[in-house]
Amino acid sequence: MSIRQQRRERILHAAAVLMRTRGTTITMDEIAEEAGVGRRTLFRYFPTREDLLVAAVEHSYRGLAGGQFQPPAGEHPDPFALLDQVLHLGHRQSANAGRGLWQIVSNPEVGSELAKAAAVRRTARRIYTERFTDTLWTLAGGPGHPPRWLIDAFSLLESMFTYYHQVLDLEQGAEESGTLAARLMAAALRDALVEAGIGVCRESCADDSDRPVLTGDR
Amino acid sequence: MSIRQQRRERILHAAAVLMRTRGTTITMDEIAEEAGVGRRTLFRYFPTREDLLVAAVEHSYRGLAGGQFQPPAGEHPDPFALLDQVLHLGHRQSANAGRGLWQIVSNPEVGSELAKAAAVRRTARRIYTERFTDTLWTLAGGPGHPPRWLIDAFSLLESMFTYYHQVLDLEQGAEESGTLAARLMAAALRDALVEAGIGVCRESCADDSDRPVLTGDR
Repeated sequence: MSIRQQRRERILHAAAVLMRTRGTTITMDEIAEEAGVGRRTLFRYFPTREDLLVAAVEHSYRGLAGGQFQPPAGEHPDPFALLDQVLHLGHRQSANAGRGLWQIVSNPEVGSELAKAAAVRRTARRIYTERFTDTLWTLAGGPGHPPRWLIDAFSLLESMFTYYHQVLDLEQGAEESGTLAARLMAAALRDALVEAGIGVCRESCADDSDRPVLTGDR
Repeated sequence: MSIRQQRRERILHAAAVLMRTRGTTITMDEIAEEAGVGRRTLFRYFPTREDLLVAAVEHSYRGLAGGQFQPPAGEHPDPFALLDQVLHLGHRQSANAGRGLWQIVSNPEVGSELAKAAAVRRTARRIYTERFTDTLWTLAGGPGHPPRWLIDAFSLLESMFTYYHQVLDLEQGAEESGTLAARLMAAALRDALVEAGIGVCRESCADDSDRPVLTGDR
């Protein structure tokens, strides 16, 4: 990584740290100080605060779009175990991201300079929610691509909206919201597989009924 | 209704209208003008802006807590049809409520005077989400009271969080978010009934499998 790239990373890291703790009202001066660079240097990298916020959001979603939620190549984990793990991870990340990003996400019109950062985030989410739901669907033995509503369900359940409902309306945290999200996503996946005419049987209504299991037959 | 009550209702209605169109930054003067009352009269009813915002939120949730989502006494509608209807209604109401209420809901720390209104809303939601999920559970033949997670699922799916995910992340509206919420709630209800060892059978994995049906046997 060139010195220029290293410095850029340091600035983006500083912006992310400040956004996490202080929200989106942070100034360019504060970011320069946190990153240990001069004000003029900062403006050379990012001419406007909008540029910097957009880059910081892109930076924080790069890992997700790049496949953080994908199982290692060649591995075929149980889809229900995978979605449980991914949703817990996603909700812990929502908790760590802090209120600054949530302000951008929930009220993107607050300042027009945040609207562009919100759009960048929206696109990044579309890519990784489609990719992950596709992986999940294939692992569960679903034919072709998953139905659109299942992707939308994952998008909702992995989102900060679901996390902040748990925090603000139910006064609980990431562990509980990850668990609720995983339960709902598992129920949605089973429904979608039944609709596709394959793969999931529930045991008949016997009194020994346990958690429904994936039979794997197609 | 006494003249005093009528005037109070008119002020709350004016506050709700302004909040819907303009957000929570509205001033007491603007509310007085919209309600057609003098500034001194307004302050006699509501000594602070906080008092007025809290009362306006209470006012807008009164219908929900009072049983708006309940079927008429003696009626036993299909639980899946009922949840579909209720979630579509809830999401249309979220759309009509406008951004002002969403700002209170999503970022209650914006001003401390909004925190109390947020708490009022949270309590009202707890009451009606528990009551509705209980009704749903009983209609579906569930034993005793529904599991906590099913109430939490309904709370999430009926919430403005789910509606605004659809609007801001998926760029769709209340119709789509109501449909997605109803699908997920139906899947959750089926899962909870299976866990309780009763009531819902999925047809076996035959290729003629259709939407799972409620058999009603306990």
